[in-house]
Amino acid sequence: MAQVDRMRALLDVLIDRTRRMIAGGRERKVLPRPGGAGPERLLDLARALLGERSQSSGVSLAKDILKLYAALNDTGKTAFFDGLARGFGPDPAAIESAWAAYQAAPGPRALAAVTEAAEPPRQELLRRLNQAPGATADLVRLRADLLRLLPDHPDLTPLEQDLTHLLRSWFNRGFLVLRRIDWSSPADLLERIIRYEAVHSITTWAALRDRLQPQDRRCYAFVHPAMPEEPLIFVEVALTTAIPNSIQALLAGQRTELVAGAARVAAFYSISNCQPGLAGVSFGQFLIKQVVEELSAEFPRLETFVTLSPAPGFRRWLEAQAAAGDALAQLALADDAPMDLPETDPRAARRLALAARYFLTARDGRGRPVDPVARFHLGNGARVERLCWMADTSPKGLSQADGLMVNYLYDPATLEANHDAFTREGEIIAGPAIRRALRDGSTSAPRAATA
Amino acid sequence: MAQVDRMRALLDVLIDRTRRMIAGGRERKVLPRPGGAGPERLLDLARALLGERSQSSGVSLAKDILKLYAALNDTGKTAFFDGLARGFGPDPAAIESAWAAYQAAPGPRALAAVTEAAEPPRQELLRRLNQAPGATADLVRLRADLLRLLPDHPDLTPLEQDLTHLLRSWFNRGFLVLRRIDWSSPADLLERIIRYEAVHSITTWAALRDRLQPQDRRCYAFVHPAMPEEPLIFVEVALTTAIPNSIQALLAGQRTELVAGAARVAAFYSISNCQPGLAGVSFGQFLIKQVVEELSAEFPRLETFVTLSPAPGFRRWLEAQAAAGDALAQLALADDAPMDLPETDPRAARRLALAARYFLTARDGRGRPVDPVARFHLGNGARVERLCWMADTSPKGLSQADGLMVNYLYDPATLEANHDAFTREGEIIAGPAIRRALRDGSTSAPRAATA
Amino acid sequence: MAQVDRMRALLDVLIDRTRRMIAGGRERKVLPRPGGAGPERLLDLARALLGERSQSSGVSLAKDILKLYAALNDTGKTAFFDGLARGFGPDPAAIESAWAAYQAAPGPRALAAVTEAAEPPRQELLRRLNQAPGATADLVRLRADLLRLLPDHPDLTPLEQDLTHLLRSWFNRGFLVLRRIDWSSPADLLERIIRYEAVHSITTWAALRDRLQPQDRRCYAFVHPAMPEEPLIFVEVALTTAIPNSIQALLAGQRTELVAGAARVAAFYSISNCQPGLAGVSFGQFLIKQVVEELSAEFPRLETFVTLSPAPGFRRWLEAQAAAGDALAQLALADDAPMDLPETDPRAARRLALAARYFLTARDGRGRPVDPVARFHLGNGARVERLCWMADTSPKGLSQADGLMVNYLYDPATLEANHDAFTREGEIIAGPAIRRALRDGSTSAPRAATA
Amino acid sequence: MAQVDRMRALLDVLIDRTRRMIAGGRERKVLPRPGGAGPERLLDLARALLGERSQSSGVSLAKDILKLYAALNDTGKTAFFDGLARGFGPDPAAIESAWAAYQAAPGPRALAAVTEAAEPPRQELLRRLNQAPGATADLVRLRADLLRLLPDHPDLTPLEQDLTHLLRSWFNRGFLVLRRIDWSSPADLLERIIRYEAVHSITTWAALRDRLQPQDRRCYAFVHPAMPEEPLIFVEVALTTAIPNSIQALLAGQRTELVAGAARVAAFYSISNCQPGLAGVSFGQFLIKQVVEELSAEFPRLETFVTLSPAPGFRRWLEAQAAAGDALAQLALADDAPMDLPETDPRAARRLALAARYFLTARDGRGRPVDPVARFHLGNGARVERLCWMADTSPKGLSQADGLMVNYLYDPATLEANHDAFTREGEIIAGPAIRRALRDGSTSAPRAATA
Repeated sequence: MAQVDRMRALLDVLIDRTRRMIAGGRERKVLPRPGGAGPERLLDLARALLGERSQSSGVSLAKDILKLYAALNDTGKTAFFDGLARGFGPDPAAIESAWAAYQAAPGPRALAAVTEAAEPPRQELLRRLNQAPGATADLVRLRADLLRLLPDHPDLTPLEQDLTHLLRSWFNRGFLVLRRIDWSSPADLLERIIRYEAVHSITTWAALRDRLQPQDRRCYAFVHPAMPEEPLIFVEVALTTAIPNSIQALLAGQRTELVAGAARVAAFYSISNCQPGLAGVSFGQFLIKQVVEELSAEFPRLETFVTLSPAPGFRRWLEAQAAAGDALAQLALADDAPMDLPETDPRAARRLALAARYFLTARDGRGRPVDPVARFHLGNGARVERLCWMADTSPKGLSQADGLMVNYLYDPATLEANHDAFTREGEIIAGPAIRRALRDGSTSAPRAATA
Repeated sequence: MAQVDRMRALLDVLIDRTRRMIAGGRERKVLPRPGGAGPERLLDLARALLGERSQSSGVSLAKDILKLYAALNDTGKTAFFDGLARGFGPDPAAIESAWAAYQAAPGPRALAAVTEAAEPPRQELLRRLNQAPGATADLVRLRADLLRLLPDHPDLTPLEQDLTHLLRSWFNRGFLVLRRIDWSSPADLLERIIRYEAVHSITTWAALRDRLQPQDRRCYAFVHPAMPEEPLIFVEVALTTAIPNSIQALLAGQRTELVAGAARVAAFYSISNCQPGLAGVSFGQFLIKQVVEELSAEFPRLETFVTLSPAPGFRRWLEAQAAAGDALAQLALADDAPMDLPETDPRAARRLALAARYFLTARDGRGRPVDPVARFHLGNGARVERLCWMADTSPKGLSQADGLMVNYLYDPATLEANHDAFTREGEIIAGPAIRRALRDGSTSAPRAATA
Repeated sequence: MAQVDRMRALLDVLIDRTRRMIAGGRERKVLPRPGGAGPERLLDLARALLGERSQSSGVSLAKDILKLYAALNDTGKTAFFDGLARGFGPDPAAIESAWAAYQAAPGPRALAAVTEAAEPPRQELLRRLNQAPGATADLVRLRADLLRLLPDHPDLTPLEQDLTHLLRSWFNRGFLVLRRIDWSSPADLLERIIRYEAVHSITTWAALRDRLQPQDRRCYAFVHPAMPEEPLIFVEVALTTAIPNSIQALLAGQRTELVAGAARVAAFYSISNCQPGLAGVSFGQFLIKQVVEELSAEFPRLETFVTLSPAPGFRRWLEAQAAAGDALAQLALADDAPMDLPETDPRAARRLALAARYFLTARDGRGRPVDPVARFHLGNGARVERLCWMADTSPKGLSQADGLMVNYLYDPATLEANHDAFTREGEIIAGPAIRRALRDGSTSAPRAATA
Repeated sequence: MAQVDRMRALLDVLIDRTRRMIAGGRERKVLPRPGGAGPERLLDLARALLGERSQSSGVSLAKDILKLYAALNDTGKTAFFDGLARGFGPDPAAIESAWAAYQAAPGPRALAAVTEAAEPPRQELLRRLNQAPGATADLVRLRADLLRLLPDHPDLTPLEQDLTHLLRSWFNRGFLVLRRIDWSSPADLLERIIRYEAVHSITTWAALRDRLQPQDRRCYAFVHPAMPEEPLIFVEVALTTAIPNSIQALLAGQRTELVAGAARVAAFYSISNCQPGLAGVSFGQFLIKQVVEELSAEFPRLETFVTLSPAPGFRRWLEAQAAAGDALAQLALADDAPMDLPETDPRAARRLALAARYFLTARDGRGRPVDPVARFHLGNGARVERLCWMADTSPKGLSQADGLMVNYLYDPATLEANHDAFTREGEIIAGPAIRRALRDGSTSAPRAATA
């Protein structure tokens, strides 16, 4: 706990710092001079910034560029991005000559010269932009813009690659700080949690309190020291006595709070990425791993780390199976399956058997499990443990997965081996219950080829 | 002040965090198994780390590598470095094919493919090493080792380049935090200040207190959030009523303290880089710039920002001039110039005239000012303002510069223009007093060609 | 601002401490054994605590007493209080003998012996109770119980006096810490602000954010280091360009935010005491004084410090006047005065004239102004500056004061003199506008004798 | 540990606050107008402060009084104290009339009226003085002055009683905060530790580091939130594997550090009160108790809590015994007992036997153990466990106790019972070794009657 507490204190201060920086910035904000805000002007400034030999004068140049950028509309941004993607690349002539030199006399140093020639000045430009106060958050927002515009402007890809490269380097695990979030966290931070919760949405402050204040609930986030007011990713945890099989029960407002020390199970029931501009810079695996460590240290009697996860692609897959002629899937879709249908009903059993198939055998075009959440947890070394019938009866839960949810088990003793088996052989490690459901299902109906 | 205070609070917490991490690490430290510590084993682990697809399992691998590395002797380190420099480079075949593709169909995306092919896997390896707790400081130490071994092993250059590249990116100005250091700073931090002071050494805690506790003295450092207990660079400042011309007077233990608000001059009298492993990653310019901002905000009545700086190359240059036949230099060297010689004595005037020449006209082989301190401040946009006669009568001050020191003036209004003139035209901007000294000197004796 | 920031940081940590103490306490909480909880048992323990010579063993005794006390119902509490009020008083025989000794040989030391004999052991008991962790807050709650029960049990007065005496000493201004409250304050603290707001109630988190987040809004509280999670009193401030005359306008959700530095007026529009157990231990005067200092330091261009205050007794007074035969009051009550009636309408003018009379001339049985809010601000040295027509059109505002509000002006230059004139001579210092309203009103209708 | 960490963080901030307050105060310091500084003037101001009805105007009056007081010399201070002791007492007439009323109609409320009449206005005056910023520390210093002057001015006793009364109430255990002190504590705080260490003096910063930095050394202090930069009392602890019997060994600079988790014994080897102005307001018992709790929580495998304490009165008592004709004592004093004399030597055995008698049987005039340190620890419920031969061979150790030291054992299981036996029956609980030494000694020589 001490560790988490210290991180909390650190983060409070860090967030405070940023908040004030922003506040300070706001007061001093000077409107960009009209006429100066066009993308051409920005590209000129970018060239000046790259040419600048004094680092510290670069700071104000960087500030100006980021300010002017923020004022551009999408057309302007696209034009600016386009300029960065076309210009600011490496000099082909320099590469050619370095490569020729290498071929003439190969060796590590000659190869290093090729590397140097091939690095796009764009990267140095982005590094210099980062010198301005608050620039890291600005660059994350800039990448969010870029990712949004990219589908329609595939030529921006080189710029996107350079930005991704830098952000991966800067948001390295070694620089992230774990922060516990609870009911005594700053309100503005909690407001962000409400906004960013992507799995089971939070609609009121009272609902948020129910997830943060009880001693059998936890929430942790990663933040980066350069933008500590912004959670990068967060996970919500319920401390329980048994592996939960219903999100309704977990989120019920009226329930008996468990004395934290009596818990045997830590259930991760929601994990949300917060920054669209950091898509592809993955934190989830590190976060779960560290939270498992924190909780183990604080509650030595915890025995089981498990998730209660959605199955976002199940219904879509089921419909595709039916359309492709799978008889069991067609039967299941024709079933009337009310929310109070007991798990032992043949209609429930049918769906569970199909779900077992969905998790254990269905693959996408690249040979990976169809379910994206399964890919994440299996890739982390968890095993798919159990299917939970009518575990999420919210409209979203019913429409995407007929109310089904899944427990993924994080067993520290087997994480490594599972991870290897999955990443190397594509093997899906599963618990006995779900394997049995697959077996039962296999016998109960003819099975179509896997999609 | 508020800004500085917040940074101080932030840093206290950050430092506390690291301190405990280290303490925690110490208790848990497991000795590497014998036989596993050879450089070959490390290179194997490094390959495994690069091949690892699970990020989080990489963390413990990275931890092991850094621990084993720390236990190597110089021979082992050299062998490990050598393995990294030779292997872990880019794949020439991949570059070749990417380059061929570019030549066949040039364009930004084809060029980006060349960039990608040319990036050495070494860089990714170093980034993965950084995921371990405390790794950033370890990598800085690793680079210090590398720089030490480099002169005898020039083939390690490619590795050094990759490491420099990464550290420049990670120690970007945008990530640094300014920290005020005073007599209420943690003792372990102050112990480091004593150790790192490179200009006017600190011999006792009482001497340290004299530089930190009085209200007319300040000290600021940059730190990085990933190793906040380690100052990267620090500057010591005296608040005075007039531009100081003697380090003895500034450092006198018995002196009348100035009410801080009455100061008109902020004199930077010592600036020390602390991390050999960050040589070449420059912070000085940013630090001075930010400290000027901090002090201006706190003491609006400050009018002058100036240094009291050593002239480390003066005596050596003077002797070279004399050896090269410069009559005035020969005359000066023959002079008996006791420490209490008044500035108006012809012998003092001679030396000052030569010093003016040293600063204003002497150039090194690359056309730059001979004096390294001058290069730093002129490059920052300061102007060389005034020579101070017998300003440093310590043995070091006398032996390297005949007791001479220099004031460089940081005038916010002209920094930018000075910097441009210096970096573009090589023009040395100087104050009237030193220009006069040059002029007087020119007439008083025949002047040899500038070295 | 620095001052406020530091206090904020201090308070964050303090609150954190208490929160955890409570959390820790909760986990360890042992239910009092049944049968042990009666008030008689508590009085026994209290006697043991008083008799205890080892201070540190007293701590656990104190803990037990406070825990058992908290479990009592009102009957039990009354009995416990009664025991404390009857027993635990000074020993009359000891007083008698000390007094006799004094009379025999008067002098300061003999008098001191009387003082000592007259101090009730109850006070020492209460001091010893305070040694338990979290006890200060417990004692404040205990006094709240006592004040609640007192009206029906006047014999508890001696106990109440002793408790008041101690709390006044412990909540001395010198021990209080100012804390700025804003949108980055901990959510649990903000929840308390919502609950404690006594003047213009806050109904949603969004409404709270509107009072805390904009740069032209401020909120400050006093807390005590021994119970820092509990605000004692807080004040809400609007930074404006002119003295506000409508609470509706101030609290409007949709309004243009003012750049804080452009403000000329700081308007205190709500001040709420939070702790019923500290009734009679007054903080308001100190809080306003310190907030004026804080704001002056942060915004040197602020010129005016003023309140926008309710007139809670106006309507009741008006009805009493009418009932007593005051013709103007009768006329006014007969008026139909809709909310959009312009201030210049004779009906408005009538009410304003009566209000001027209410503030400037009406006195209660003890010769003090009738209005309790007026008594507070006048006692602080403020002057009653201006009446605001239809300034609070909430149901509460209309029913208690026909929508009227008042500006009290805090002019640092005259506070002292005003305060003296008011406390010594009972003089009510008033601004020209309200004096004019009184004059106008006096001529417009016959005036009844002041109540 | 978490608890300690939080306290540390809290204290850092608190100390920072005070430091700045002092710094701020220093800059703004206005010299008292000449002629206004006499004690008469102060007494006038004190009367004004008491008469003041506005609390907040009292603040500046209090500030002035404390400032003027600080500028007085001892004559002035004595006169001021004298004025406070003579005037500012309760009004005898009021007591008389309240007492008469009580006698006429006895009852709790009438008694409360006597209490009220008997409280000296002096106490209210002191409470009002405390409203000024930093006043609590000023009042502690004022009491230090008073205690210093008291022996020559016994008539100041009533004032001293009132001040003590208040400080006891304000420095109640419930308000104190435990602070861990280590090598990362602020230098100015450590400077105070060096200055205040009263048992085994610290002569250099390196010696201080040896007591703070190793993981098998701890130091804890109590501070008060109103003067957090000032330790009130601190204790130094060594974590060891066996009960230590030599202070030389504990303080040796060159020694092998123990892994903290391997410790089985926590040895309190120095405890120092820091504030002369708080003499008689005892903290030691609380401090030891809480440190035992902290250490137990952090190191669950600690089994023994013990002191290594001086025997400051032993030599003096021995000489008195000899002078009174005690044969064994005379023999012992005649012995030549060099520092390297083994414990088994008859000369050592003689001294140890006498020491056992000193601790177990010698009583002062009030029937208490002669040794003041023994009184403190026995009063806390510790037992005198063992005598340590030549445990302190410093000049001070040799001269006051012939090199002897003592272990007092703090056994949580028996503290309460021991304490009761000691405070109620005067029984001295002792360990078997020391009882044996007494027995051996009794037989080895005729024993004089206990002093």
